[in-house]
Amino acid sequence: MKEYYLGLDLGGTKILTGLADTQGNIITRSRKETEANLGEDKIIANMIETIETVIEKAGVKKEEVKTLGIGSPGPLDAQKGIIIENSNLPWKNVALVERMESALGIKTILKNDANAAALGEKWFGAGRTVDNMVYLTISTGIGGGAVINKELFTGINDNACEIGHTVIDPDGPLCGCGNHGCLESFASGTAIGREAREAAAAGKSKKMLELADNIVEDIDAVICAQAAYQGDQAAREIFEKAGYYLGIGLGNVVNIFNTEMIILGGGVMKASDLFLDQALATMKEIALPGPLEIVTVTEAELGSDIGLMGAIAVAMEDKLMKNE
Amino acid sequence: MKEYYLGLDLGGTKILTGLADTQGNIITRSRKETEANLGEDKIIANMIETIETVIEKAGVKKEEVKTLGIGSPGPLDAQKGIIIENSNLPWKNVALVERMESALGIKTILKNDANAAALGEKWFGAGRTVDNMVYLTISTGIGGGAVINKELFTGINDNACEIGHTVIDPDGPLCGCGNHGCLESFASGTAIGREAREAAAAGKSKKMLELADNIVEDIDAVICAQAAYQGDQAAREIFEKAGYYLGIGLGNVVNIFNTEMIILGGGVMKASDLFLDQALATMKEIALPGPLEIVTVTEAELGSDIGLMGAIAVAMEDKLMKNE
Repeated sequence: MKEYYLGLDLGGTKILTGLADTQGNIITRSRKETEANLGEDKIIANMIETIETVIEKAGVKKEEVKTLGIGSPGPLDAQKGIIIENSNLPWKNVALVERMESALGIKTILKNDANAAALGEKWFGAGRTVDNMVYLTISTGIGGGAVINKELFTGINDNACEIGHTVIDPDGPLCGCGNHGCLESFASGTAIGREAREAAAAGKSKKMLELADNIVEDIDAVICAQAAYQGDQAAREIFEKAGYYLGIGLGNVVNIFNTEMIILGGGVMKASDLFLDQALATMKEIALPGPLEIVTVTEAELGSDIGLMGAIAVAMEDKLMKNE
Repeated sequence: MKEYYLGLDLGGTKILTGLADTQGNIITRSRKETEANLGEDKIIANMIETIETVIEKAGVKKEEVKTLGIGSPGPLDAQKGIIIENSNLPWKNVALVERMESALGIKTILKNDANAAALGEKWFGAGRTVDNMVYLTISTGIGGGAVINKELFTGINDNACEIGHTVIDPDGPLCGCGNHGCLESFASGTAIGREAREAAAAGKSKKMLELADNIVEDIDAVICAQAAYQGDQAAREIFEKAGYYLGIGLGNVVNIFNTEMIILGGGVMKASDLFLDQALATMKEIALPGPLEIVTVTEAELGSDIGLMGAIAVAMEDKLMKNE
């Protein structure tokens, strides 16, 4: 009997689902609006619809589908298969694994999205040659996942690797988590947007204002990057400052995890040429010689498929480990 | 045939060696000056002497001794069994494992002292009930070791868990590693001593000066603690400040490792009532709800035997894992 694996990338705005063969090649895929505003039951119905679509399109029997992997923003309890809460989805303590299993009859595994992405890069992306790596996503927030001796390091209740919420300067900006000076408050897309609006409001960047049609509130990290690429000095400095703090975070990751590789992904990395050199220079200052010697920092390979490939890697993890 | 295990705690001033039974009970022990100033060959000869002493005193046959575990300050390459360098010992790139094995005919395993101590607390100390823990030693410096799923997390070249050298405030004091604002530069015994000397030199503490016979240079963390216990306000504030920064470090550890337990050891912990409440309060602010919920912070149990029991745990690790 043939074997197939399902991956589902659950986002606040869209659901991305794929059916993969035993090599992790996506055979069929389906995309649907999450329709988060319509509530829990509708979201789950949409998820199931995408799954039925990919199975049907592939002409595969349901019994041939071994496992469904779901990557979702947290906080969640992966062991219990429960999404505890989610700022983008209107639910609380949803027993997602149980509901999917009873609806589909397919074994389901839930992981937080950063952990799933780390696993995706380990098995199908930049990390495929190494057994020890840390993945950092630099996006709206900063999330992380680590693979140690090939295995996802989840922590005791799936909260490990919250590297975005390590404090690197207690006098720093207020973070979404309520603390001051988390890595995320300095180097995420949100942080870059905040700095950009402050700079524009202070009259330091006509370019950013111009790009936002003079509406300061519309300035975000994307506009800041556009301005920087057009030579705007204030915008460039904002990215360099973010790079400096990211470098502190990377240096700390090197000194704590001592992995062969650090993989950087997330939307902000599209503008990596604006901050990565600074980040690496700062990282090299902070990292101790022993762990620095052995580490490579590289960009994620899976691009916009990272969520989906991560979810597929979650579904396939046991098999991938056995095949090694 | 009976089985015994050797542990050797290699320090800059003394060598502490013990022979243990299969339960980890120390049967015989030996202590000798390291005599680091007399060079590599003499240090190794002293190590061997302590080992021969404990074997002889116990009336055990050398063939009954399965493994020798050595805990040593780093940096070292545990896999290759090489001590790369050491600020307290006059050697560089010493193939210690090879030399001990050829001299004794006993399988030898080398680990850095903080990792060995973590393993000691895991198997014989405060961590014996948990499978996931981080050990932090707050001493002259701040070192760390983590146990994940019962196994020591060493990193790819034995440099993991250098939590003392994570930057928590880039504007902080100069650290021994060359960076500014490492955890160690705020909360180690060295940092407390530095702050105490500064306070005394600035005329903020007559008590500390008095305790040091008016020699500012003689003021250290021990004198600062004495002054604090005698009600000296400046000394108390120094410990509270150290506690605040330790709390940031602990919060970061909680958010990164998501373990069941954090165990605190090292000489500075003798004055834990001067700073631990502050540290825990700050940790609770910084830690995210998910990982905070599950973690317990506790003091190390092995006291002055932690180095020796750690080395014995290094020797016995394979056996202890199998017995589980």
